[in-house]
Amino acid sequence: MVEKRKPIPVEEAVKKVMEFYIEQKSEKVPLEQSYNRFLAEDLVASHDVPAFDRSPYDGFALRSVDTESASSESPITFEVVGEIGAGYVFRGEVKPFQTVRIMTGAPIPAGCDAVVMLELTQEVADESKKIMQIKRSFKQGDNISYQGEDTKKGTVLVEKGTKINPGVVALLATFGYHEVNVAVKPVIGVIATGSELLSVDQPLEPGKIRNSNAYMIMAQIDRAGGEARYFGKFNDDFEDCYKATKDALAQVDCLITTGGVSVGDYDYMPAIFEKLGANVLFNKVAMRPGSVTTIAKVGDKLIYGLSGNPSACYVGFELFTRPILKTALFNKQPHLRKTKATLGVDFPKPNPFMRLVRGKVEYGESELFASPSGLDKSGVVSSLGGADALIVLPGGTRGYEKGMKVDVLLLEDLGGSEWPWSNIVPSYR
Amino acid sequence: MVEKRKPIPVEEAVKKVMEFYIEQKSEKVPLEQSYNRFLAEDLVASHDVPAFDRSPYDGFALRSVDTESASSESPITFEVVGEIGAGYVFRGEVKPFQTVRIMTGAPIPAGCDAVVMLELTQEVADESKKIMQIKRSFKQGDNISYQGEDTKKGTVLVEKGTKINPGVVALLATFGYHEVNVAVKPVIGVIATGSELLSVDQPLEPGKIRNSNAYMIMAQIDRAGGEARYFGKFNDDFEDCYKATKDALAQVDCLITTGGVSVGDYDYMPAIFEKLGANVLFNKVAMRPGSVTTIAKVGDKLIYGLSGNPSACYVGFELFTRPILKTALFNKQPHLRKTKATLGVDFPKPNPFMRLVRGKVEYGESELFASPSGLDKSGVVSSLGGADALIVLPGGTRGYEKGMKVDVLLLEDLGGSEWPWSNIVPSYR
Repeated sequence: MVEKRKPIPVEEAVKKVMEFYIEQKSEKVPLEQSYNRFLAEDLVASHDVPAFDRSPYDGFALRSVDTESASSESPITFEVVGEIGAGYVFRGEVKPFQTVRIMTGAPIPAGCDAVVMLELTQEVADESKKIMQIKRSFKQGDNISYQGEDTKKGTVLVEKGTKINPGVVALLATFGYHEVNVAVKPVIGVIATGSELLSVDQPLEPGKIRNSNAYMIMAQIDRAGGEARYFGKFNDDFEDCYKATKDALAQVDCLITTGGVSVGDYDYMPAIFEKLGANVLFNKVAMRPGSVTTIAKVGDKLIYGLSGNPSACYVGFELFTRPILKTALFNKQPHLRKTKATLGVDFPKPNPFMRLVRGKVEYGESELFASPSGLDKSGVVSSLGGADALIVLPGGTRGYEKGMKVDVLLLEDLGGSEWPWSNIVPSYR
Repeated sequence: MVEKRKPIPVEEAVKKVMEFYIEQKSEKVPLEQSYNRFLAEDLVASHDVPAFDRSPYDGFALRSVDTESASSESPITFEVVGEIGAGYVFRGEVKPFQTVRIMTGAPIPAGCDAVVMLELTQEVADESKKIMQIKRSFKQGDNISYQGEDTKKGTVLVEKGTKINPGVVALLATFGYHEVNVAVKPVIGVIATGSELLSVDQPLEPGKIRNSNAYMIMAQIDRAGGEARYFGKFNDDFEDCYKATKDALAQVDCLITTGGVSVGDYDYMPAIFEKLGANVLFNKVAMRPGSVTTIAKVGDKLIYGLSGNPSACYVGFELFTRPILKTALFNKQPHLRKTKATLGVDFPKPNPFMRLVRGKVEYGESELFASPSGLDKSGVVSSLGGADALIVLPGGTRGYEKGMKVDVLLLEDLGGSEWPWSNIVPSYR
């Protein structure tokens, strides 16, 4: 009567999915539009920084050798022979006991090897020429930013696959990337299925709920750096769902369906996958929520049959779709960033399946704390709003206690991890 | 010769800025466009969740009282009198030893008080009617998700001012917010000044650098949730800069200028502020980088004179502009999220000013580590690309050592803090 499905461990399921990939493609966008995109090539310093020896302060450039005997008792005076603002170059050469007034960022004039900060100098009254006086000595190199001391030309400053943050934007601008080679956003299709689904603008009806999964997943796709394409919601009708799925698949890099993957009489997705000629990678994962998650390959495309339960759907995306998407964005740490946190509550009931609890991470004085962000049930939607982490509780014959160190996967972190699924072992420290 | 400026502590400077505010305004956007915006009103549950007693599993709904004597030896049979998919309602009433086939999410039929999972039932061959058999008893409430057990109608689920993440999108959809009341993005103007500035697409010239600050700040404005408006870059020319500043100010909520705030002969911003009739809040802050940061009020608008040094400019924005912007977005934790981290390197040289070092945070087994993301000099741009935190080292007469616990401000965290500037005390545990 009931189809028997064999659950596979989460680690194995993710491995199976990661054998698939979306082709990495790049495109040029104007610098102004590059923020939040992913670099499709390494960001290389196209020149030394500084590009020339320059002054980090406002002051006077001079020859340090001329300052050797300067002191409060016997100040030394210099003739001011010029002045250079940032962006200008002093064309002459500075001779003994001459100096040039120099602004922050301006290039050091030929002959000079030190800069005296404005605050340490005094103007001396003189009718015929401008005179400056100092009361201490300076060494060669004092207050000079040397060419290349920050960055040498040719240095790789940011690696391909990195998300472009404001600091990276600054580097792109500095090195003349007015157009930026970024990863093309993979197009991920979304289809919601279920006769119980109302549109968001419809009033509630007995037995029905509003379609929240589609909008949630579109935001998750956006967060991960992809482009979401929505194909609508469909009742539990085999022909409608089959046609919608087939049509959508042709237009996207990957397709996500929600609902209809369980073993109920109205769960048509398994049959639809079969009719599409799909190669099912797995249809049961030893995890909660989301044990019925089904993922299949149709031709060279992945199709995700995520659960209709919001939390299961959410977790399924983060575990199985996010890394595929990030990999297409040239990212080498495509999985959620993993870290350790102290468990804030007891989980006394053992569960044979790995649990991924929607949680919230707090920063303590010297450690992270993680607690559930709401009720830990797959149908529960309220816990999703406050979640910024998934608390990973391996399956087994025992529960977990408050105070244990557990692994958490960070949902909003820009970083990632190469492979978070090894060594997941809660422990007492 | 040199204007003497009196530095004020960072905490005091931020306080002065926070006396100012941009008017909080809201607008409606379609749900699909709400991701990453800020809620302008609390998200309230518009109905119970579940909205009705429902089945969390595929199975059979029945009266638990009928199952009392069921066992392997003496199974009990039930007549299947109907079936309900999710989204449908069973209109009849279930009588003794009757049952209804029920799908995940469907409402519990009248008369039933328990659900038996499909896996625990067996079909029994019968020609005239459908018969189901069970071999154990069930209690009232078994496998029923009761109305309101997740969320009660009227509960505030997400507070005004929260950034809308995918989980919040799911909640908005669930409760019928097909249009979402979000904060209007404050418009922040950007002007870059400095005769040394080339456009990003220009080849390098002696003494010049490319304009990186404007693009960096625009990305920072974007990251903080604002709308950037760029007014161009200008040479160090009083009249040009004055006119540009005045025109821009009229079109924005806040204006950021970079460069020209130092005490050099070409630093015109102080004079421009004066001609604008600005009330200067401060023109020197006891911090590195960014000590020359100047902030003033012109009428009811703030004008930021940030340093032309990229790192100083970056830090100035995060400390002084971000919280103003976030407050306009209804956010109650407008400052960068603060946490403790273990310092990864020595800072042997004492500095009288508070240092804000561009840093990178790593998650250790049980704590965070923070190290500089590059050279810690204000003119240095390479350290900005990898920075995800500012390491806060208070000014004083001593340096700091590797292994000390220090405060860090997280740059990419969606969270924030109400007031991070109290109790900044590095310590050995």
